[in-house]
Amino acid sequence: MDLNADVGEGFGKWTCGDDRALLDVVTSANVACGFHAGDPATMRDVCRLAADRGVAIGAHVGYRDLAGFGRRFIDMEPAVLRAEVVYQLGALGGCARGAGASVRYVKPHGALYNAVVNNAAQAAAVVEAIAEYDSSLAVLGLAGSQLLALAQRAELRTVGEAFADRAYAPDGRLISRSAPGSMISNAARVAERCVRIAAEGVVDTVDGSCVPTRAESICVHGDTPNASRLARAIRTALGEANIDLRTFVEQV
Amino acid sequence: MDLNADVGEGFGKWTCGDDRALLDVVTSANVACGFHAGDPATMRDVCRLAADRGVAIGAHVGYRDLAGFGRRFIDMEPAVLRAEVVYQLGALGGCARGAGASVRYVKPHGALYNAVVNNAAQAAAVVEAIAEYDSSLAVLGLAGSQLLALAQRAELRTVGEAFADRAYAPDGRLISRSAPGSMISNAARVAERCVRIAAEGVVDTVDGSCVPTRAESICVHGDTPNASRLARAIRTALGEANIDLRTFVEQV
Amino acid sequence: MDLNADVGEGFGKWTCGDDRALLDVVTSANVACGFHAGDPATMRDVCRLAADRGVAIGAHVGYRDLAGFGRRFIDMEPAVLRAEVVYQLGALGGCARGAGASVRYVKPHGALYNAVVNNAAQAAAVVEAIAEYDSSLAVLGLAGSQLLALAQRAELRTVGEAFADRAYAPDGRLISRSAPGSMISNAARVAERCVRIAAEGVVDTVDGSCVPTRAESICVHGDTPNASRLARAIRTALGEANIDLRTFVEQV
Amino acid sequence: MDLNADVGEGFGKWTCGDDRALLDVVTSANVACGFHAGDPATMRDVCRLAADRGVAIGAHVGYRDLAGFGRRFIDMEPAVLRAEVVYQLGALGGCARGAGASVRYVKPHGALYNAVVNNAAQAAAVVEAIAEYDSSLAVLGLAGSQLLALAQRAELRTVGEAFADRAYAPDGRLISRSAPGSMISNAARVAERCVRIAAEGVVDTVDGSCVPTRAESICVHGDTPNASRLARAIRTALGEANIDLRTFVEQV
Repeated sequence: MDLNADVGEGFGKWTCGDDRALLDVVTSANVACGFHAGDPATMRDVCRLAADRGVAIGAHVGYRDLAGFGRRFIDMEPAVLRAEVVYQLGALGGCARGAGASVRYVKPHGALYNAVVNNAAQAAAVVEAIAEYDSSLAVLGLAGSQLLALAQRAELRTVGEAFADRAYAPDGRLISRSAPGSMISNAARVAERCVRIAAEGVVDTVDGSCVPTRAESICVHGDTPNASRLARAIRTALGEANIDLRTFVEQV
Repeated sequence: MDLNADVGEGFGKWTCGDDRALLDVVTSANVACGFHAGDPATMRDVCRLAADRGVAIGAHVGYRDLAGFGRRFIDMEPAVLRAEVVYQLGALGGCARGAGASVRYVKPHGALYNAVVNNAAQAAAVVEAIAEYDSSLAVLGLAGSQLLALAQRAELRTVGEAFADRAYAPDGRLISRSAPGSMISNAARVAERCVRIAAEGVVDTVDGSCVPTRAESICVHGDTPNASRLARAIRTALGEANIDLRTFVEQV
Repeated sequence: MDLNADVGEGFGKWTCGDDRALLDVVTSANVACGFHAGDPATMRDVCRLAADRGVAIGAHVGYRDLAGFGRRFIDMEPAVLRAEVVYQLGALGGCARGAGASVRYVKPHGALYNAVVNNAAQAAAVVEAIAEYDSSLAVLGLAGSQLLALAQRAELRTVGEAFADRAYAPDGRLISRSAPGSMISNAARVAERCVRIAAEGVVDTVDGSCVPTRAESICVHGDTPNASRLARAIRTALGEANIDLRTFVEQV
Repeated sequence: MDLNADVGEGFGKWTCGDDRALLDVVTSANVACGFHAGDPATMRDVCRLAADRGVAIGAHVGYRDLAGFGRRFIDMEPAVLRAEVVYQLGALGGCARGAGASVRYVKPHGALYNAVVNNAAQAAAVVEAIAEYDSSLAVLGLAGSQLLALAQRAELRTVGEAFADRAYAPDGRLISRSAPGSMISNAARVAERCVRIAAEGVVDTVDGSCVPTRAESICVHGDTPNASRLARAIRTALGEANIDLRTFVEQV
């Protein structure tokens, strides 16, 4: 099982989350690429920190929307979106190279992440961008999403993820962030959910049932105050359950 | 001799210059990288147009200043500038790869171009960025600039350029753009100057004298209404003088 | 009848349309406020040009999206949209004051214009912004839109507009810009349509029928190459039909 | 004596400082206007918080530089700077109006603050912007600066300020932020300095001497972790020294 978290989400003077602490725990780092967050100096520093720890670097590509942190759907033309994803992949690739590392996978951020679950045109744009930039990159996204279906058809390596701290509906969908009870903050409960995801391939839902999930990675959110503590609790619980933690890509 | 021009200087709906016409004439294309101009879709299209014509692609890196078109000095910390240059190199590299091409050289734009003539700290930042991103890239700049001196010391390939349509002072410096008579618009005169630069290694100055210049490339400006016509006149004049036009980098 | 057009849609070095020529013809000027286009120096200059000609100044408020020219729907929180509209109103108000003039009305731009036809939450946000900033401002929008309905309920002065150069469906809706035949470029036909709108209160549709329209203003697009020529043809035709052209707001 | 602090310096998701705690202590609030920091929703909220507490609202105008937080000198044309200051004044004016309040003064931020100490062209641009927008606004800046000299000549109300937590050179200049010892963090010492500034009109310098200062306001920095605690210590110390704390502008 892989643990992934968002890092590098500051911009200039503004910081966001404790990247170092998270990078000590996770196995994959989703690095913001400058469109929804992430300035070049931060991107480079984060790539070096990740490389030093053997953490896989992923491009956390998003809509061009610093003011909205990439959390607002933008009804973009697919051709423009494709070009913007290629631009972000290249930009992070440059920063990673500057740090002696390289990008290994792609994960859409925020509203783009949600859009490519169902919006086939935007999902196709992201897949085409990856294929034309570097078809050896893995694609990390929601299991069952259009993104992963189209990526698979394009013969890209796909990786489904589950959310440790987000509530699931009985049909396997995520409960909207704005709904009450959508975020699970109790560390023990989050850790326990992770063990079930990893060991049994199921995730608990809000009505007490559970649904199957084919997750190869678990997403830990980095912008909550206790993010790194939560991540550590998960790591410890998975270790105690003898579940091996490592990134889904081969590191070079 | 090489002819270079700025292309891809639009942004979204806004266009700037006639890229196609210029790319039919020049041998090297300075492509804006999104910081002073250049959106990803335009960057990709321009890279493809350049590749189709065998025109070398250069990264026209600039300050992060869309509102000022990169023409205003920004007193940046060198470490931040270095990271921003790496980011731009990677971003254009991605767009070029998407178009089946690759970046071959770097040329600073606008106020950054002027800054790195004398500002050693910013010049060093640009050189370090290039060295850490890809030390096989050539550096195109003003002959005699700090930029080229430091690039040479870093064992990068350096290329000095002269300006066909800018007036020179007797000491070899460029007359400021805002001074009267600083821009030469007469096509025949511009073409004649180019032939002297290429054949004799000298450029005419405002007082009627001439100064030596070790230019391997001549810059043609792309944002004047008759830019491509001027470029064509230069190309014709150089051809008639039996001066071979080709890019300074080996094309792959 | 009033004629309105978009002006001030450049940004920094990039220009868009011939503002002077348009301002010589129209009676109301929709001035971009910096979010989808419009830099402060341009905004101030345009306000002065409008004031000199007795043309009413309107705030052309849009989504924060320079890269997309405000033409892409952004799924914003209404409270954020409201604040952003207030910000734009104040900013243009400042520029107008600097030019000795004042803002008299508000018209949403691009994707926001389309959104507030049906999206009640975003329409309400725009109306609340206007009411809290200056309830003496008129609201210019599509006749029959949510925007005008909510503005009327808030006791704001509302003004419906028709489009001279856009094709209408038989149900009175605009044909999408991307559909073939959606833009009417023949000047004589556009002028004739305007006379019917003004004199008979009807607009021709694509199937040869016509639908009633309660337009107090006709919108002329400013970003087409022959925009000002078209506007002049309309003005002449309306004059020949003895239709008085003047702004819908009382000028001070 | 007046106490002023910077507030509203977040942007979208990113926050900066504890505005509420500061607004409970200071008498004047320098509100970021969206160019170096400050999104519209934050600006409006901060204006309301300030108005509720009787704190005077000032426009903290800066360079257009979110990535650099306005802390980098930009060599702008004065006419463009003037228009950008007018834009920011209007924008904050709109947000303040939305909160039932109004802007009472102007203080340049960051690198612009430093530039207008000596750069007469940029200082004149700021003064002209204020005069053309609203000549009843006070101008808050460094005592002895070009800004205040030119503002006085333009018959604007000028207010000089001193810094409680910045080290002064024996000639009365501020020691550069990057120099060791330039920031004074000991609360008791900062408070004591303030009392001397207010009661004796002198400020201590790094060599143990003191220089006269004609400050009507003391600036407290808001972006240090203990900013509001420091501000409270100052307020208490001034109260114990029977120094009345109130804004320099008449509140309406």
